[in-house]
Amino acid sequence: MLPERLNRLVSLFSRLPGVGEKTAQRFVLHLLAQGQGLPERLAEELIALATHIRPCERCGSVGEVTEPDAPVWCSICLDQKRDPRLLCIVARVQDLLAIERSGAMRGRYFVLGKLLSPLEGVGAEDLPLESLQRRLDEGEISEIVVATPPSVDGEATALLLSRELAERNLRISRIASGVPHGGDLEFADQITLGRAIEGRKPI
Amino acid sequence: MLPERLNRLVSLFSRLPGVGEKTAQRFVLHLLAQGQGLPERLAEELIALATHIRPCERCGSVGEVTEPDAPVWCSICLDQKRDPRLLCIVARVQDLLAIERSGAMRGRYFVLGKLLSPLEGVGAEDLPLESLQRRLDEGEISEIVVATPPSVDGEATALLLSRELAERNLRISRIASGVPHGGDLEFADQITLGRAIEGRKPI
Repeated sequence: MLPERLNRLVSLFSRLPGVGEKTAQRFVLHLLAQGQGLPERLAEELIALATHIRPCERCGSVGEVTEPDAPVWCSICLDQKRDPRLLCIVARVQDLLAIERSGAMRGRYFVLGKLLSPLEGVGAEDLPLESLQRRLDEGEISEIVVATPPSVDGEATALLLSRELAERNLRISRIASGVPHGGDLEFADQITLGRAIEGRKPI
Repeated sequence: MLPERLNRLVSLFSRLPGVGEKTAQRFVLHLLAQGQGLPERLAEELIALATHIRPCERCGSVGEVTEPDAPVWCSICLDQKRDPRLLCIVARVQDLLAIERSGAMRGRYFVLGKLLSPLEGVGAEDLPLESLQRRLDEGEISEIVVATPPSVDGEATALLLSRELAERNLRISRIASGVPHGGDLEFADQITLGRAIEGRKPI
């Protein structure tokens, strides 16, 4: 019933994560009804995305192109106040942002972009291990925090990283897993509770 | 932590209905990671939205601009197979689409765009009543189905419409309200059950 052109826009929106066809239709009809230049401004910024935003060449996070031929670094790699000895390895930029919000990481990051996943056919050769080694060749880093998620794929990736980096003289740690803050023990799953007890600390 | 340009895109996405800042961030990072021309294609279609899509001049639904100065009609107003005597009045294009999916309406539509809402300051003067009268002046319509939602605002709008159109020689009806198909009486609210009993039919 909608014009073909609108259906094309609906199907593009429905390729966003968690967006089904009905939600995409709602987005499009909202953009139509609302107007106020929102579709055009969204279009403008989306075009700028392709030309102005690149992965950080040092850590794989998100950087902004400043000059055409200058190397692209993210704001954290550029930040001289960060502890240059500490590197936190995460799966996705979203995870980096979550850790930044916690304020608990003083060092810099390295973004893998994906996790080992035999089920989805992602092997060690698909991870940016060479790029990570180059990053470590810069020499200042002495401690690595592996902050991949506490899932099967995340644990497998952490194990791979610890083997991959074993020859270097580095302290490697893994983020703690247990019952979350404010969480109810009654509703925690068995694996989480098991980990909380295994990882207990003296008080 | 993200480049300013990305934050601008995040805040534009978060103006879509049901999208908070975190979801918008997920969209943007997905668009960045996925690439494959998705941002550019989305931008292209969004620009086309402003130039090629207009409200149908006859019914307020969505029409496509074919020639620069030709009047814009939607596909239902253009469809000669529709019953020209039957007009269904809905609040939003989404409601029109839902009714079309049911296949129960053979006639055409009129989209109000909004409902009477004293709380949100929407009065009778904000509804396209003149445009509705012009539509009825075309003369073929003999029956009107008011399909505004069975909410306070929807009922108030239905009442306003029935008064507004009382002088015309038209059959005006309101869609039925009751327990939905597959619904459980135990979990139906009081008003719905009350309406289901009031609106009972001989079997």
